[in-house]
Amino acid sequence: MGTVEETVDGEDKPWAEVGPEAARRLLVAAVEAFAERGYHATTTRDIAGRAGMSPAALYIHYKTKEELLHRISRIGHEKALEILETAADAEGTAAERLAMAVRHFVRWHAGHHMTARVVQYELDALGPEHRTEIIELRRRSDAAVRRIINDGVEAGEFDVPYVPGTALAVLSLCIDVARWFNVEGRRTPDEVGAFYADLVLRMVSARKPEAEPRGAAQK
Amino acid sequence: MGTVEETVDGEDKPWAEVGPEAARRLLVAAVEAFAERGYHATTTRDIAGRAGMSPAALYIHYKTKEELLHRISRIGHEKALEILETAADAEGTAAERLAMAVRHFVRWHAGHHMTARVVQYELDALGPEHRTEIIELRRRSDAAVRRIINDGVEAGEFDVPYVPGTALAVLSLCIDVARWFNVEGRRTPDEVGAFYADLVLRMVSARKPEAEPRGAAQK
Repeated sequence: MGTVEETVDGEDKPWAEVGPEAARRLLVAAVEAFAERGYHATTTRDIAGRAGMSPAALYIHYKTKEELLHRISRIGHEKALEILETAADAEGTAAERLAMAVRHFVRWHAGHHMTARVVQYELDALGPEHRTEIIELRRRSDAAVRRIINDGVEAGEFDVPYVPGTALAVLSLCIDVARWFNVEGRRTPDEVGAFYADLVLRMVSARKPEAEPRGAAQK
Repeated sequence: MGTVEETVDGEDKPWAEVGPEAARRLLVAAVEAFAERGYHATTTRDIAGRAGMSPAALYIHYKTKEELLHRISRIGHEKALEILETAADAEGTAAERLAMAVRHFVRWHAGHHMTARVVQYELDALGPEHRTEIIELRRRSDAAVRRIINDGVEAGEFDVPYVPGTALAVLSLCIDVARWFNVEGRRTPDEVGAFYADLVLRMVSARKPEAEPRGAAQK
């Protein structure tokens, strides 16, 4: 999943997939401003200023502040969905696929915690049509995790009393990494991901796989 | 723990412990405004207006907007700490105490999700002294959960590879209920609390207690 870090919020060039360059810089500035001050306290003038551009230059790329939030939210949610569907479609046991989903999903939320917070906390600020679109992406993310857990239950690998609630709790646990990661985290995104994969396998009472998932159960 | 719901954000009279009445109404209005629009996008004029009061009347009770946030944050964190320390100090096995902590902590975060979001997401907006005070309350909350988990490990009840990381994950899982509860929840705060208590006992690989914790492991 190295590509995720390189294309969204990576160290070298965040949001490299967004072009042209001015549109990319504005998106980076918008994430920072929304994360620091909240969507409603941020003006398009603030965002243009952070990007070293004029408000008029911003309007060439984004007609409204909401369009910026929608762009950020859609890219963030599409990455999350890609991570979860890749794991759901992967080869291997349900435990291996669930561990993979959690490891990569946590890594993304830790490594891109500023984007993730905007994506998660500013959902209500989206316009009705954009919100519907994003809720559909979230429904599909949820479905990918449920699919893995259901497969594990059917194969007798997992013991889960209530699959939808467990899938929601797994995603919730991983998403909240974006809230605390910067403040209290003493570990790398990779280490948190591996530790969480182990915790989630416990939540579904997974039988110990023959080969332990890579990096799980760290001291 | 019924008193928690009655004294903070309860159905009948939220924040009943705060007085006089005008100060209480302003606090309720501030929680709503901060939760809806964010701290930075909210003015003291907005808050006074929501409470049906003049800005001048607000200043009698709160000198700054930050004072309102601090008051909300301190009461919220003190309630959280009370819930967790009560469970840590309770009689019973570590599994029973951990289940009690999770059940009540989740119930509070589900039942008071608006307050909880403000308390959790606007930490950076507190002034330095107030932040230090709140971080100390959080440290003590964390310590209460670690204490229960450590007791369980020492008694051979729990199998946990890394206690501090597990305590953080348990709190994080419960806190994030405040983010999704209103949007996706189909269950009562009590039901979510009972379901989560079971999930957390799985996270610590608790041995099945002789009598199952009340309400855990619902279908």
